[in-house]
Amino acid sequence: MAEQPLWEQIGSSFVRHYYQMFDSDRSQLGSIYIDTSCLTWEGQPYQGKIAIVEKLTSLPFTKIAHSITAEDHQPTPDSCILSMVVGQLKADEDPIMGFHQSFILKNINDAWVCTNDMFRLAIHNFS
Amino acid sequence: MAEQPLWEQIGSSFVRHYYQMFDSDRSQLGSIYIDTSCLTWEGQPYQGKIAIVEKLTSLPFTKIAHSITAEDHQPTPDSCILSMVVGQLKADEDPIMGFHQSFILKNINDAWVCTNDMFRLAIHNFS
Repeated sequence: MAEQPLWEQIGSSFVRHYYQMFDSDRSQLGSIYIDTSCLTWEGQPYQGKIAIVEKLTSLPFTKIAHSITAEDHQPTPDSCILSMVVGQLKADEDPIMGFHQSFILKNINDAWVCTNDMFRLAIHNFS
Repeated sequence: MAEQPLWEQIGSSFVRHYYQMFDSDRSQLGSIYIDTSCLTWEGQPYQGKIAIVEKLTSLPFTKIAHSITAEDHQPTPDSCILSMVVGQLKADEDPIMGFHQSFILKNINDAWVCTNDMFRLAIHNFS
């Protein structure tokens, strides 16, 4: 079997790690962002790891479970990785909802960090 | 009213231009890609403007109409723009389907080109 390209392995590991952390303890997600990272969450912009974690931890649910149904990864011209995830999530006792999320990952000082993050519920396809 | 940041104006103009061209004559889309551009279309990878346009023009429908229901834009650390679009499309007489698409735009020789493009139908949220 052909080995996956490195950028695909990195992107794929990143998204697994991200959703595991999100579902178990999202206050830990600060470790993957930097001070210039941008998050657009349902159209609302947040910048910097502190503002991003504050937003993510203030989301109004206690339990959350994500499942990935499709993921795509590409190398970018500036040696970053673009990842797009399509999946489903279940928050507390709400009905299951579709979501999609895009990330740009950049290698800074030998660690992969998330510089850009955009999240939308799939309801926007039908608004 | 506050003016939109430049990267938001550029991202927003780009996506309008892209879908107008896609819906009217998608064989013209080569003008927005370069030879290193990557497209992942429903999980299948294509690289370079020729391969990308070949894929887009070979899609099995005659008429297509996209409508954007939400779009997000962010500047990236390398002076690119990340755009994520959520919308609906109608191909020929098929039922309306949701889709999402992510682009990275880069300024090369004073023109904004698309270096990265990922497309998924929204059905993957529920597969």
